[in-house]
Formats: sequence, C-alpha cells, structure tokens
Amino acid sequence: MSFNTFGRVLRFSTWGESHGPAIGAVVDGCPPGLSLNERDIQPFLDKRRPGTSKFTTQRQEPDQVRILSGVFEGKTTGTPISLMIENVDQRSKDYGDVAKAYRPGHADYAYDAKYGFRDYRGGGRSSARETASRVAAGAVARLVIPEVSILAYVSAIGGDAIDMDHFDADEIGKNPFFSPDSWAAARWEKSVDAARKDGSSLGAVVECVATGVPAGWGAPLYAKLDSELASAMMSINAVKGVEIGDGFAAASLRGEQNADPMRPGENGSPEFLANHAGGVAGGISTGQPVRIRVAFKPTSSILIPVDTITREGETSEIVTKGRHDPCVGIRGVPVVEAMMALVLADQKLLHRAQCG
Amino acid sequence: MSFNTFGRVLRFSTWGESHGPAIGAVVDGCPPGLSLNERDIQPFLDKRRPGTSKFTTQRQEPDQVRILSGVFEGKTTGTPISLMIENVDQRSKDYGDVAKAYRPGHADYAYDAKYGFRDYRGGGRSSARETASRVAAGAVARLVIPEVSILAYVSAIGGDAIDMDHFDADEIGKNPFFSPDSWAAARWEKSVDAARKDGSSLGAVVECVATGVPAGWGAPLYAKLDSELASAMMSINAVKGVEIGDGFAAASLRGEQNADPMRPGENGSPEFLANHAGGVAGGISTGQPVRIRVAFKPTSSILIPVDTITREGETSEIVTKGRHDPCVGIRGVPVVEAMMALVLADQKLLHRAQCG
Amino acid sequence: MSFNTFGRVLRFSTWGESHGPAIGAVVDGCPPGLSLNERDIQPFLDKRRPGTSKFTTQRQEPDQVRILSGVFEGKTTGTPISLMIENVDQRSKDYGDVAKAYRPGHADYAYDAKYGFRDYRGGGRSSARETASRVAAGAVARLVIPEVSILAYVSAIGGDAIDMDHFDADEIGKNPFFSPDSWAAARWEKSVDAARKDGSSLGAVVECVATGVPAGWGAPLYAKLDSELASAMMSINAVKGVEIGDGFAAASLRGEQNADPMRPGENGSPEFLANHAGGVAGGISTGQPVRIRVAFKPTSSILIPVDTITREGETSEIVTKGRHDPCVGIRGVPVVEAMMALVLADQKLLHRAQCG
Amino acid sequence: MSFNTFGRVLRFSTWGESHGPAIGAVVDGCPPGLSLNERDIQPFLDKRRPGTSKFTTQRQEPDQVRILSGVFEGKTTGTPISLMIENVDQRSKDYGDVAKAYRPGHADYAYDAKYGFRDYRGGGRSSARETASRVAAGAVARLVIPEVSILAYVSAIGGDAIDMDHFDADEIGKNPFFSPDSWAAARWEKSVDAARKDGSSLGAVVECVATGVPAGWGAPLYAKLDSELASAMMSINAVKGVEIGDGFAAASLRGEQNADPMRPGENGSPEFLANHAGGVAGGISTGQPVRIRVAFKPTSSILIPVDTITREGETSEIVTKGRHDPCVGIRGVPVVEAMMALVLADQKLLHRAQCG
Repeated sequence: MSFNTFGRVLRFSTWGESHGPAIGAVVDGCPPGLSLNERDIQPFLDKRRPGTSKFTTQRQEPDQVRILSGVFEGKTTGTPISLMIENVDQRSKDYGDVAKAYRPGHADYAYDAKYGFRDYRGGGRSSARETASRVAAGAVARLVIPEVSILAYVSAIGGDAIDMDHFDADEIGKNPFFSPDSWAAARWEKSVDAARKDGSSLGAVVECVATGVPAGWGAPLYAKLDSELASAMMSINAVKGVEIGDGFAAASLRGEQNADPMRPGENGSPEFLANHAGGVAGGISTGQPVRIRVAFKPTSSILIPVDTITREGETSEIVTKGRHDPCVGIRGVPVVEAMMALVLADQKLLHRAQCG
Repeated sequence: MSFNTFGRVLRFSTWGESHGPAIGAVVDGCPPGLSLNERDIQPFLDKRRPGTSKFTTQRQEPDQVRILSGVFEGKTTGTPISLMIENVDQRSKDYGDVAKAYRPGHADYAYDAKYGFRDYRGGGRSSARETASRVAAGAVARLVIPEVSILAYVSAIGGDAIDMDHFDADEIGKNPFFSPDSWAAARWEKSVDAARKDGSSLGAVVECVATGVPAGWGAPLYAKLDSELASAMMSINAVKGVEIGDGFAAASLRGEQNADPMRPGENGSPEFLANHAGGVAGGISTGQPVRIRVAFKPTSSILIPVDTITREGETSEIVTKGRHDPCVGIRGVPVVEAMMALVLADQKLLHRAQCG
Repeated sequence: MSFNTFGRVLRFSTWGESHGPAIGAVVDGCPPGLSLNERDIQPFLDKRRPGTSKFTTQRQEPDQVRILSGVFEGKTTGTPISLMIENVDQRSKDYGDVAKAYRPGHADYAYDAKYGFRDYRGGGRSSARETASRVAAGAVARLVIPEVSILAYVSAIGGDAIDMDHFDADEIGKNPFFSPDSWAAARWEKSVDAARKDGSSLGAVVECVATGVPAGWGAPLYAKLDSELASAMMSINAVKGVEIGDGFAAASLRGEQNADPMRPGENGSPEFLANHAGGVAGGISTGQPVRIRVAFKPTSSILIPVDTITREGETSEIVTKGRHDPCVGIRGVPVVEAMMALVLADQKLLHRAQCG
Repeated sequence: MSFNTFGRVLRFSTWGESHGPAIGAVVDGCPPGLSLNERDIQPFLDKRRPGTSKFTTQRQEPDQVRILSGVFEGKTTGTPISLMIENVDQRSKDYGDVAKAYRPGHADYAYDAKYGFRDYRGGGRSSARETASRVAAGAVARLVIPEVSILAYVSAIGGDAIDMDHFDADEIGKNPFFSPDSWAAARWEKSVDAARKDGSSLGAVVECVATGVPAGWGAPLYAKLDSELASAMMSINAVKGVEIGDGFAAASLRGEQNADPMRPGENGSPEFLANHAGGVAGGISTGQPVRIRVAFKPTSSILIPVDTITREGETSEIVTKGRHDPCVGIRGVPVVEAMMALVLADQKLLHRAQCG
C-alpha cells in the first residue's frame, strides 16, 4: 500500500513526483489560531533548495510555497493546510536510459517489481524532491512547539567527521555543508568537489538536537518518542541508520558507564549529569535534549558505470546522467529538522490528549 | 497517548505489566484458515524465557501461552486472536526502593513526569516482560509468511564482536548467547559472568536476516519497509540504534562502493552482486535478504550505586535489586525476530491489498 | 480485514467468541489517575446481562469482569486496560444445524463467503455476546467524561412506540424493557411474550441522550461527532438505522421549521429554542443534548422455519434452536450507552489534543 | 482534532474552503496500472456542479479538475493522486452578516466554540463545496471496483416521495432532481420552486443501490461494511440519518417478516427471496444489492429571519443572503454515490489484504 501520511493527531500527507507539475503537503490537525503565512515556511525551503552551490544538484527550483487552505486572516483555522510547490525546472529528456535499465541503489527495480511500471522521470515519487513537502510541513509543525529549538548539522562526510572541540553553532549557516566545524567544512569542500569531479558521491551523517522538550512527551511502547523518530528519519530518502543518544556506541558500554545520574536541579526538575539516553527513557522524553544521528548513504546516481540489467532482463551498464547531489546528506539537514519538528509536535498534542 | 498497537492491516495490541496477573496480545487481521495452536507459539516463547541460564534474569516464568479466541477447530478464523500469558513469579517486595527514587536509565522519572505516578513493581508497563507478548504475536505472523525465513543472532556483546569467518548458523541454538560464533560465545561466557558478578551489565548488538522476501513489499514513503522496521525495532526496550544493510558504514562509502550491481539471474529475477542496501531500495524490498542491525544498551538495572533523586526531589543513590538480565540484548534475539515477522507479514498483506 | 478496534485516541479492541473460553476488551489511551476497579464496570454489565427475565435469552452468564492490567493502586496508569469476562454457559451442542445450513438474516453465509469457514457455535464472533466487551469498555470511557450524563431507553418495540407524555426517566430501570413509559412497558410485556411463544421476534428502537457535552467536541469532516456516532451505532449487532436529532423526519421539514433559534443564555452560552439538530452542527457539538435514535431489527434467530440452503448449496429449511432474545433491541440499551460514552470520551481527548 | 482523511487502505484526504483559492483531494493507496485522466472524473463533477438549474445555487463554478500527481502515461502509478479544483466564483462580500452573528443550523457557533474563530466566507470548511473533492475522489474509487454499479437518486423531497411503481432508472438523468419518477419530478418542480421563492428550503431523502458487490466484503465489527457506510454518509453535510436495507422499518417487523430466505441459485451462489438486510449481514456483503437511504435536512441558509445571537452574545436576527441550494439533498446524489464507491473500493482492497 502507498501510505503517504505521517503522524497520529498532527498528520501530514505528501503528494507529487519529481517531474510532475507540482508537489505538496496537506497538514491536518494543526491547532487553530497560530499565525502562519508563506514567509514562515519559505526560509526553511530556501535552506533545502537545490542549485545554491556546486555541492548540490544544479536543478534550479525556486521552491516557492503557496498556502491554499487552512489559514484565514493570517491564522490557522484548525482545518487542513494545503501547501503547494510548483516544479519548474524539469528536464525529463535526461532520463531516457533510466526508463530502459535499472539504476542500482535506486528504487527503479523495486518499483517495477511492486507496481509493474514506474514514473522514471527523475525518480518520480522516489525522488528526494518529495522532501521539500516535508520541509514545508515541518515549518508548520514548528509553530506548534515554540518551546522547542531544533538544530541539525552535518557531522561527517565520507567518513571524515567534525571535531566537537571546533563545534560552533554559528558556523552552520555560513558554509554550504551545514558544518558546525569550519575546519571540517574546508576539508569537505575538497573531498566533495573531488567526488563530484570523479562522477562519484559521498555518504554523510547528520546529527540533530532538540532542546526545550519538556519531560513527558512520548508513550511506553509503539508510539514511543524514539520509535516515532526512528520511523520518521528512516523514511527520508537515502537514510540507512538511526541512533538515539549514544546509539550503537551504547552497545559497547557497561551499565554504570551508560547511566545518566541525576541530582536535584532548579525549579524542582532534576539535573542530569550525562545524556547517553539522548533525552528519551522508556519511550518518553526526560527533559534533556533529544539527540539523534542519521546516516545517509552516498547518492546512488553516479557517472561511474555500474553493472545492471534492462527491464527486459538483459545485461547492461548504466551511468546516471541528469543533475544530482554529490552528497545527498547535505541537503538532508533541513529535512531531518523538519521530521524532528513534525514528530515532536505530534507527540505534544498526543500528550495533551491523554494527560491534559 | 498510550498507543499499544503496532501494524497497519495485520495489527497486534499488547497489554499487561511486569507484576500484574497476566500479560497478553491481541492479533487482528490475520488471514483465515491458517493452522494454529499453542504449540506453534510456545517454542518461540521458550527461546525468550527467563531463568534458563545464569546469563539471564533468575525470575522463573513458565510463559505458557493460551489462545483465548480467533481459532476454531485448529484454524484461524480471521477474527482477533487473543493470547494470554500468566505472570507467575512476581516478587514485588523487591521494589520498595524503586517506588521512592528514580533509577537512572529507566523509565521511572519519565513516567512520573508524564502520568503523575507509575506502577513501580518491576517497571510495570516499561518492563521488558512486555516483549513476551510480541514474541507470541510474532509466532502468529510467521504463519502468514511461510515463504520467509528469519534468523537473528547476537553479533557483539560489550563491544566484543563475532568473527564472520566463524559464522555457523547451527551454533546459534547451542549456546546461551544466540551466538553464531562459538569462539565469541566462549569469550562472552566470561565477560557476561564478570559483569554479572560486578553487579554491572553489558550492551549488545543483534543482527537479523530475513530471506525469501519477494521483491515488491513496502511502499515509497511513510510505510517504507525500512521505516516500519526502524519503528518496530526502536520500540523494543533498551534499543538505541537501528541500521538497514550497511547502515552507518554506508555513510563512509563512495557511491560506486555502495552500489549493488545487478546481472541477469535465474527465473527472470536479477542477481545482485552485493547487498549494501540490506534488501530494501526506495522503501520496497528487492528480493535480496533483508538485513538489519539493532543496538541494545546495557541493562539499566545494576547493583553499582548511581546518583539519583527521590520523588520528592531529594538527593539519593540507588542500587537496583531484584532479578535482572546482565545483558538484556541476549534475550532480545527472539524479540527482534518477532518484530521482523510482524512487519513483513503486515507488508505482505498491504502489498496484496494494493497490488492484488 | 478484521478491524476490531474502535476510536482514535481513546481506543478499544475487543476479542472473543460466543462459545470460546472468554471475551474481552483492551482499552488504550485512557488518561492516568482515574479511580477504577471492577465495581465501576460491573453495574453496566449487569444491566446488559442475559437471563434476567423471560424477555431475554435464558443463557446464564454471570458476566463478571476482571481487570488484568492498566490499574495500579486503584487508579488508571495510562497504559492499556485489559478487561476479561469468562464464558460460562456455552452449550455448543445446540448448534449442529447451524453448522450445516445458513440462518437467513445471520452472518453465517457472509462469513463462509469471506473466510471459507466459520465458528458456528453461537454465532462465534458475530454473536451479540461481543457487546459485553463494549459495555465494559464503555464503563471506563464514562470515567473520562464525568461532565456528561448518558441516558438510553427503548422507545418502540415492534412498531409500538412510547408516548412522550408518559416519559419518566425513573421508570427505565423498573421494567425489563428499559421503557420510560410504564404504559408501553405493560403493552410490550404482552407483545414480546406473544412473539416469544410464537417462536418469533420483534424489532425495537433505542433512543439515547447525552447531556452535559460542552460545545466544541467533534470535527468538521470525517471525524465528525455525528459521523463517529453513526459508525459506532451501526457497528452494533442487528442495528439497521441511525438518526441524529430529527433524523429522517428532518427530510420532511422546511428550513424555518428545522432551525434551532438561539438567544442569549446564562453564563455567556447561547440558549437554543429547539434541538432539531440533536446537539451537533457541522460535525461539532453545540452544547445542547446529543440525541440519537437507533433501529434494531428483530432477532434473526427464530423458531419459525425459514427457507435456506446448506453449505453444499442444497435446499433446506432452518429453525434456530438455542437460546435467543425475542427482542435483541432491549439489551441493546446499555450497549448504545456504552458506544455513546466511548465516542464522546474519544472526542473529548481529540479536542484537547488540537485545541488545548 | 481535524481528521480530514477517510478510508483504511484506499484513503482520501480533502482540503480547502468555500472561498479559498482552490479545493482538492489526495487519494492514496490506489492500485497501480488503472487508466485515469481528467475525463474519467469530470462527468461526475458535472453532475454535482452548481448553477445548472434554478433548483440549485446560482454560484457559477466550472469545477474543472486537474490531476497533479500519481498518474504517468495515462495510468495510476500507485502513488498519491492529487486532485485540485480551483474556486472561481467567490463573492465573499455576501458574508458580512455571517461574520457577526451565528446562522442557526449552521456550523458557525460550533466552530467558534471549538476553534475560537472561523473562516466565515461561505461557511469556510463547513461548506458543502467540500463535497466536490469527494466526488472527484469517488471517480477514482470507481475504477477500483469495475464489477460494481452504483445508482443513487432522490426518493423524496419535503416529505413528498416517489412512487416505486413509476421507477425508471433512465429518468434520473433527465430531470434536475435526479428523480427516477417523472411524476414526482413534476411535483417537485413546483414545491422546490415555491420554497425557493419563499426564501425557504426543503429536506430530501437520497437512496443508493450498489449492484455487483460480491459476497465477502466487510468485516465482523468496527470495519463492518454497514458501519463504514454509515460513517461515510453521516459525514456528508446536512445528513441526519442513514439506513441500511429496511432501516427503521425493520424495527417494526417480526423476525419471519424480516428474514431474507435463500434457495439454490445459479453458479453455486444462493438466490435470496428478499433483501430486507440491504445486502449486508454481520457487517459483510452477501452478494445482494447494497441498499442505503440517507436523510438530508433542509438547507439551513434561508431568507426567512431566524432568532440568533451575535458573536458578542447579543440578541439578533439573521437572514442568510448569498447563493444557496433550496434543497441541498438534490446535489447530494453524486456525493452519496461517491462515498459508496469510496467505501466499497476500500473494502475490496481490505478483503484482498486479509483473504487473498
């Protein structure tokens, strides 16, 4: 089945293909009375927008969002908010080869196996272009959780990680890699450019921290805050791994190393002396920063030939022309932030439903 | 909100607390006409059962499952299958300290923050005892996907990993660690026992492979096969990370290294020359084995004192008595298998709904 | 698919067959901290209990409910509440004929067409016995909406209606028909007994009024308060029609006759001069009493022979032995009340989620 | 909460307000490979289109639908189908009075009570204009169930019913009332015109029959075919009652009168000698025609003054100017058909999911 809706009480549904006339999202369940207009959404789309440096795809999309419903006199009405972004710079002629043969690492073969055929233009529905709809929806979700600050950044590209001693949040917006470490950004400039010139691509790790999440959001089991986050992040194109807090590193620790001791803090809240848990215990937020890490594989679209088969099952070799990101994880940063916002906003409303 | 249901068309809901009279699961949407009786479920529960070696909790639970509905004359009727397991060996008196102070790493504080109070006996709903219900439900799900074989095992404990050159599937059932590497099992015997004697605990990594999954299960976006798997695995107690295929390692690769080249195979299906993707592309199965890795943190319940606060906000120190697994990841193996089965069975039925 | 769950954030799932070992419900999403024990539920089950007069089935079921989870020290914990009722008085031998031939008006043929076979003992899952689970769940829902009073009664049996001039709410509990009109009750005593002696059965209309529902519960479209109520009531066995407010009678009115004029009331709330709408406008409660009417068909199980076919497709005739209600609508009263409570409690929590 | 999605595996979400720039629907879960273009949808929208006779609102809307996604080379791809209809003939200036005072029978007061304010232009989200989105989605659903024929018609206006002896399906498209009885249509021409001239409005009853539904669609309980239909129909603006088969009339029958006797039919299927049940038994289709009746109240927007209050709680009187249907039930006919198609298509896919 084609489930294109995410969320439980604050839900969004996305629609649209890479080379169709438009893409969009419908956000349902938003609280009424929030100030909202296109200017609240556009800056987030601009962060994700392609074509802004040589380190991203050269497809030129203004990504202007239009609000078609759910807002009256500048305020959300509580009814569905329909967001639409027109596709402008489609070049479907680039995709002749893709129609005939399967690009390894892409959804091409899987789509054909499932549906019997596929919209091969730019990957159709499987294109990362869909993530613009998420970013637009995420901008709405942010309005629901003004108490929360969300910050994501790239922490590694092609295995070359940032140095946390160089961490400077102000740096993130100043380089084309969303890097909080200007030394790493300088190195990545070379490595990403080299990969691009080689017709290759690089993987990346994105980290995201949400501060200001109060203790108590989430649920013990299948609507666990961490389970919802894992689902949200793994649904992003090219993501292959998700960690909460220390993640896989926790599997190498002993119990006393992994404990987050507590002592009395201000305002009656506890003060935690560590945050191995990443702000979630038993599926419920603890009031500490919610920390996650997300692994993006290298872009599957590369100019280096790869063995494949045609739709008819014949041996072939494919080179993916068209315009692609040499490191799709970079533009994943605003998408990860958006999904974090959408999960947290949904959980806030769910908590309010049950616990008042 | 307390969402205790997982799945879309094959759904299960679990209920019950560690020290209540019983726990259980209701499995809904199961196809009719499948042969089912308690003997189909019990072997999986026995694998997860506590008290079978000194490397697991000493709580003695027979974990005898009873089918209360949904089966007539030995076959599933298509109506809800109610599964119940009685709790036998509760010792709630062990939990006096837990009632008064928060165990770091546990759900104690988060539950109080959310609900205002909690059932502190054995962790109540947050206890890993709930996973027995999942294992029972998973046994039903396996009947829905007879074409699929699921195999999970422990691949690392406390950072000490198996050697894939020693991999022997037959070994998994022969040691108390579900280890496919007898050398590793021998090492873990010492390290887990040492941790136990220290009153400490160890983390673990569990790997799971499902073979026989046909190409075409899953969906492009929010019901992606990998997104569902991530959600399912992260909902298991103590899990902090999930990887599909190469997972985080893919973030260090270049595009050509990460490609899974294809060539014509038998029966018209492609043959893949690698499986970095872990059997999922664009959210849809490719016909390759579905491979995942799951990180379990070390058990939070340890005998080593940890700083904490009381419910009244006073400084305290806590030692978690009671009976606990020194490495909760070990008994996670049948739980990971169960969740894999439940996700795949649900996706099979969803695929059939949309694509016939 | 077999969707045995109702509700959006306060959800309940039921399981069990008429002649299985037990039936039950799992209530999920209940707010924490509500006082709950078996004594809060039992009185509602006792109202629905069979075998209490000659006007209901003679099956003797104590219908003792047991709470298996979700309550700690007398209060709801916010985790799933598992409710179980054992079946005591099964007499499956009565059902030999039903196994072989289809009872017209029953689910027998439809089940076989859908599932390929069926649990024929007492109707299996299609038995009205399932409604005991709803009544138990409804008792929990009532605790969520203490501001609301729910009152249902039988307003007609076999086409013989009560006289609203004789309406006396105190009468409802005093006769075996839940009649607010003692004159009608006296007439029904004769007509229902006559039908019973004839081996026939009678239909009935149940009305239900919920007072104290504040304005603002519900939603504009597919979670409309009236849409949810219609779904809830039509899901009850033997129900064939649902009306909100004036219902079908409104289709014969002119706009000015159907208007519910308003004038300033006390406390700033409007006072309505009529309630044709039944307390719902645009899918959202108005603060007026929520009024619905529900039509129950006559019990399909009768001793008068009806033409039918066997499972093998041969001509046959069937007489439904066993123990049956001569008027199934009578015991529908506590079920209608329970479904009203479950819908309103869910809507209250949904409203709180979106609007705080 | 604002749940604007309907369906379980074939789902549609609608968005848009009466006087916004556009309205639309997103249809998700549609099987792939179905031929679909705008010409498959437009005829159904044309049937519902306003302004085609003096018996409907004079608002002039071309209601041209545009497919924005989910179709490639003329076939559905299995991904979300985004349908958009622009609003052309808004005249928001007509609604000054509505902004200040509540129209009795409308959602005005309930919206303010729920959301704190509302989009008063043309009723905003509560306008029957939303039903155009349903009709568009319903046209897609029809493609999923080619085995089913759906026919709806008006059976009564203002209490004046058709004579079934005059029933002629060919008549339905030949008069502005969707009447199958030309005598009734002639009478309604006068009565509706008189109501219109009086500034009043009339209620109506719409009947709908679906033939070709095979036995086996539906589910025993909360996804009952009849429960889903009740929910679907009651979600349509102005609907106050729903009946399946004989509906409320069944409540006046005896068991033997209400039975639908069976005898061996052709092709091994049973032949039913009556259809009191309306094609559904135990929540599952029997193979007989699915018959429902839907009650529409008279349009609440009338030119006859009604007592009301202002937003400030002051006494007032309101006359609803603007352009309105004198009998909103008439244009309900294609909407009822659309909802029938959407429910049946969803149930077909659900049945396939569980039963193959």
